[in-house]
Amino acid sequence: MNGKLFLFCVCIMVFLNIETFPQTDVNSFNLMPAPVKISYSEGKYRITKDFTVAIKGNSSERLYNASARTVQRLSGRTGLFFPEFSGAKSDNASSASMIIETDKTGALVLNEDESYSLDVSAQNVSLKAKTDIGALRGLETLLQLLGADENGYFFPTVKIEDSPRFPWRGLMIDASRHFMPVEVIKRNIDGLAAVKMNVLHLHLSDNQGVRVESKIYPQLQKLASDGNYYTQEQIKEIVAYAAERGIRVIPEFDIPWHSTAWFAALPELASGSGPYKIERKWGVFDPVFNPSKDATYEFFDKFFGEMTALFPDEYFHIGGDEGTKVEWTANKDIQEFMKKNNLSGIHAMHSYFNLRILKVLTKYNKKMIGWDEILMPEMPTSIVIQSWRGQKSLFESAKKGYMGILSNGYYIDLIQPTDFHYLNDPLPDTIKLTAEEKSRILGGEATMWAELVTPETVDSRIWPRTAAIAERFWSPSSVKDVKSMYARLDRVSVQLEELGLTHIKNQEMMLRRLTNNNDTKALKTLVDVIEPVKLYTRHSLGVKYTSYSPYTRVVDAALPDAKIARDFRNDVDDYLLSSKNNTEELNKLKDQLLIWKNNDAELQKVIKKSPILNEISDLSKELTEVSEIGLQAIDMIINKKKPEANWFIVQMGTLKKDGSISFGQSELMIVTAVEKLFAAANNFGQN
Amino acid sequence: MNGKLFLFCVCIMVFLNIETFPQTDVNSFNLMPAPVKISYSEGKYRITKDFTVAIKGNSSERLYNASARTVQRLSGRTGLFFPEFSGAKSDNASSASMIIETDKTGALVLNEDESYSLDVSAQNVSLKAKTDIGALRGLETLLQLLGADENGYFFPTVKIEDSPRFPWRGLMIDASRHFMPVEVIKRNIDGLAAVKMNVLHLHLSDNQGVRVESKIYPQLQKLASDGNYYTQEQIKEIVAYAAERGIRVIPEFDIPWHSTAWFAALPELASGSGPYKIERKWGVFDPVFNPSKDATYEFFDKFFGEMTALFPDEYFHIGGDEGTKVEWTANKDIQEFMKKNNLSGIHAMHSYFNLRILKVLTKYNKKMIGWDEILMPEMPTSIVIQSWRGQKSLFESAKKGYMGILSNGYYIDLIQPTDFHYLNDPLPDTIKLTAEEKSRILGGEATMWAELVTPETVDSRIWPRTAAIAERFWSPSSVKDVKSMYARLDRVSVQLEELGLTHIKNQEMMLRRLTNNNDTKALKTLVDVIEPVKLYTRHSLGVKYTSYSPYTRVVDAALPDAKIARDFRNDVDDYLLSSKNNTEELNKLKDQLLIWKNNDAELQKVIKKSPILNEISDLSKELTEVSEIGLQAIDMIINKKKPEANWFIVQMGTLKKDGSISFGQSELMIVTAVEKLFAAANNFGQN
Repeated sequence: MNGKLFLFCVCIMVFLNIETFPQTDVNSFNLMPAPVKISYSEGKYRITKDFTVAIKGNSSERLYNASARTVQRLSGRTGLFFPEFSGAKSDNASSASMIIETDKTGALVLNEDESYSLDVSAQNVSLKAKTDIGALRGLETLLQLLGADENGYFFPTVKIEDSPRFPWRGLMIDASRHFMPVEVIKRNIDGLAAVKMNVLHLHLSDNQGVRVESKIYPQLQKLASDGNYYTQEQIKEIVAYAAERGIRVIPEFDIPWHSTAWFAALPELASGSGPYKIERKWGVFDPVFNPSKDATYEFFDKFFGEMTALFPDEYFHIGGDEGTKVEWTANKDIQEFMKKNNLSGIHAMHSYFNLRILKVLTKYNKKMIGWDEILMPEMPTSIVIQSWRGQKSLFESAKKGYMGILSNGYYIDLIQPTDFHYLNDPLPDTIKLTAEEKSRILGGEATMWAELVTPETVDSRIWPRTAAIAERFWSPSSVKDVKSMYARLDRVSVQLEELGLTHIKNQEMMLRRLTNNNDTKALKTLVDVIEPVKLYTRHSLGVKYTSYSPYTRVVDAALPDAKIARDFRNDVDDYLLSSKNNTEELNKLKDQLLIWKNNDAELQKVIKKSPILNEISDLSKELTEVSEIGLQAIDMIINKKKPEANWFIVQMGTLKKDGSISFGQSELMIVTAVEKLFAAANNFGQN
Repeated sequence: MNGKLFLFCVCIMVFLNIETFPQTDVNSFNLMPAPVKISYSEGKYRITKDFTVAIKGNSSERLYNASARTVQRLSGRTGLFFPEFSGAKSDNASSASMIIETDKTGALVLNEDESYSLDVSAQNVSLKAKTDIGALRGLETLLQLLGADENGYFFPTVKIEDSPRFPWRGLMIDASRHFMPVEVIKRNIDGLAAVKMNVLHLHLSDNQGVRVESKIYPQLQKLASDGNYYTQEQIKEIVAYAAERGIRVIPEFDIPWHSTAWFAALPELASGSGPYKIERKWGVFDPVFNPSKDATYEFFDKFFGEMTALFPDEYFHIGGDEGTKVEWTANKDIQEFMKKNNLSGIHAMHSYFNLRILKVLTKYNKKMIGWDEILMPEMPTSIVIQSWRGQKSLFESAKKGYMGILSNGYYIDLIQPTDFHYLNDPLPDTIKLTAEEKSRILGGEATMWAELVTPETVDSRIWPRTAAIAERFWSPSSVKDVKSMYARLDRVSVQLEELGLTHIKNQEMMLRRLTNNNDTKALKTLVDVIEPVKLYTRHSLGVKYTSYSPYTRVVDAALPDAKIARDFRNDVDDYLLSSKNNTEELNKLKDQLLIWKNNDAELQKVIKKSPILNEISDLSKELTEVSEIGLQAIDMIINKKKPEANWFIVQMGTLKKDGSISFGQSELMIVTAVEKLFAAANNFGQN
């Protein structure tokens, strides 16, 4: 492997690109992730109703099906009545509009070749790849290339050479805290495939539930799942569905902690004396498997025997995070066991446990992956570390010889803006690691923890932000223009809807319910400029969330990285960077602020009819007040009137009663922009 | 059984109701289906976060789960943080907010008791039922009763006694023409339960596919399904899901015709010589099972042995519709067989076939149900006839001693307005049948044939219209006020969304795709006043639909019974029934027409960017022209100026080029209203 040299070449090519044609052109292709190399010559391949596809070379059933789905999606977007959804599998392809050619069927393993090249001429389309998986990636690129003009649909005449930067590009879905039915998983697999991700990591057990059927231990699904679990048939269905899309499925059973639910079925394996019930609250809890009992390892030997047979991937995730010492300290047997085995302290005991679990996994031909905490000197370097703690921890692992993937910075449950995740690089250019150490950084995973999401809202937390994360994992590190990312993200987001994803459409549905079937317009106007509070703040605002809580409030309908608010902030920035004499731009800002200012009057009428909205009544009023301040600031700018000393502080002081403007666990996302307008009035106005 | 007397009592009670309180009050409860008897005393049961449920008497796991789902839905709508989703199963219920009491666990059989009584006082809620299935129906009523005011959420203090008019209330979903994945079926089962339907009929085979896995004949799913079939596990999952909601599942394998797909796997069982391929076109086709071969019946013996084990219901549907004689006539063996067995003609042969199939079903303890065509003198009266041909055919069967259900008039794939289906009664008051004959009319089924729908659009064809059909089957025949039905339907429609149904939310999604991610507003304005062409007209407008066709065009996004257009037609009617001096009303109509008139300018900009919209360009222009005519008519009314002779005909003549205003297979639904405005100008204006 010569990873360093390869990366160097990549950068050159990208720079060549940006030189070759204007930035706007690159954006107009709307590709996400951006390909390694793209060249464009003015021209169009026209798509007609006679569009056909032929597959040459080593065609797989998977490629044939993917090609059929591609043609079906093209038909859906264009309304063209194609003769069929896919062409002949034969080599007799001279007359086909598009020819796909692959050398071999790809394996669903780490480091499989996913490269492809796509060549669109005015006459036909050619897609070549070493593996059918590479061809699948190319088909998604082709779908993103679809353009339209007054004469119909076309692909621009481009030549693309593409391959991923990292071999491990994933999304973790927590199906334990809130169970996610098969259809949620399937549509998200389609979403992952659309943005060239290749790993779905399923977090299948936690304090709140064990989510896979066991034939050997049926008490698990009976007593530890509330009836919400995947049958073994459904697991096979998910794994096959993912494999059809070139995506590996990594199961995670989080042990020895995060395990209360197991003990509702198997109390004898716990370290404490119980009694244990499925946990209904969120947080870090003490229940932990008893590492001193042979029965524990006998259980895992049988249970993992069953599970490893269901999940064909070579990796198997054992969690291992967030240990507490309470139960191990209180249990005399365990204390004695530790003494007898020279295990000094919780870390040594955890390490002992992991080594025995490693033996079980090795027996079943699986490699171990776990969170940072499983990294201990005793562990062999064959394990993979998933870092929730951060890059520092990841790089230290790499130096010690361990492979790792980064999840810190990709915690999409924390509702941070897309660019925050986008600019978080698993392997920043500045990092001081040897080439060999760098090669141990395999990629990363976005993590969708599910305490505060349900099947109704989960897509809106995953998408579209995960598309930008996918670009970070696939595209060269030099691709990091935030403006370009956002422009392409808007488009990809809508394309993702054709796969059944609900990240856009469920919001209006939730607003209809929230307004009690009244007009949703005023509520939408507010929701467009708010976001849920960030990080774990929702858990510390008075409400104690549990499995039984409603996740149907305004804060749940509010989206991360609210576009309308972001656009306004950008408009203000653009204005402030401009000549400042742009009254047209100022008037546009005024018009927007006026709409917001007047919104509360309408919204209050709806709130009166729908008590669930009471909690955002004050937030709605604040929008009016903040908008009024913004309008006054603009008037001062226009009239070149410097504000009174302390004017802004006094104005805002009446709002920020608690240091921030948030009600109903949501926050107003235009406040910083208004602050900037004020600063502008203050700096540039004349008294 | 004393059905006649019972029905008489029902009517009395309903009339008493309507006397007891004003119609508006009845409507304000928003119940659909309307209950048999409801009485109301001014008062409210206030729902707080401490709301709990207790189940007394013979509680079933099904009732416990349904109660938990009910509390969860209440939590979702109100945002209240209940302590848990359901209460204790014990009899210790003194402190519970709501007590559910049932005598026994209901069986999923025809004529099971589904009655319930609901008593809401200011202090608590009491739900009583003979069976847990009756209690499930009552829980849905309770959810519909939820009200809100400035002080919070409440149930009005009502007393309800309720039971269904017909014992067979169903929906058929065609999963053969377009396969409908498990989640489509599940969410529609939830929808059926919400409106108290009790039968899901799955049309599982047709020319285009056989959709259930066979372990004995795996070539069926391999060669006759395109990979789109329910595994046996999935069938069990669907049946269990339906049973949990008190819904029977009736499987249909449509034989001996409608069977091309079977022969792609089992050509030896066909009457023709083939070769056979899965059919891609829609229509009536000739392939038919060979009724002269023992192998045919041996196959069905084994295959139905497998299928009857999967579907526990006592009825099993064998289709039997739309025979053609082509293959039987051309096959010499069959002709000889008919002669030898004294079978004169296609009907006799069909009858022979059915009798042998009947033997198979009887062996597996199933009763036969089929379409009109299976009714032949030779058939025993134990069979049930599903009438697609009409009431006349149904009543004739009843006279001959056969039980029957009505589907004619409930063909929701034909895009007819809700009130058409609503006023179609399986057993009109005027019908001349004996009480015994009447008791043979078991109810009806809406039929969702799937040639022109996909999983993306199917919900929008089923809902909300099927809720009105459900009322026809459940509520007393006297409940037939169309205005009240529409008012309640609007509300139920939004409530159905909480079950995951996509009938509302998928439209905006489709419009985003159709506009190629441009502003959807102008397109929405047009789509709001159009409907797909009715009946089977879409098949005769030049486009030949197949399995491969796109079902993503404007006509697919357009909804049946377009509400905005209907409201406008009603507003015009209301105006014309009023004093005619109501200028406020006229101005409202003018404002609406002005919006429509001006819409085309905006829409044309979008059409230029999205070629899939080209086909509705003319329709958009027509909306402008029709609106302009309407505006002129209103001006004439205001100015009391009689139109010139032939003015309207000339105006409209320029529009109705082909006798109707339809482009893109959609039609403008405000034309009749504009015609009425013209007539008013003509009749009441003065020259």
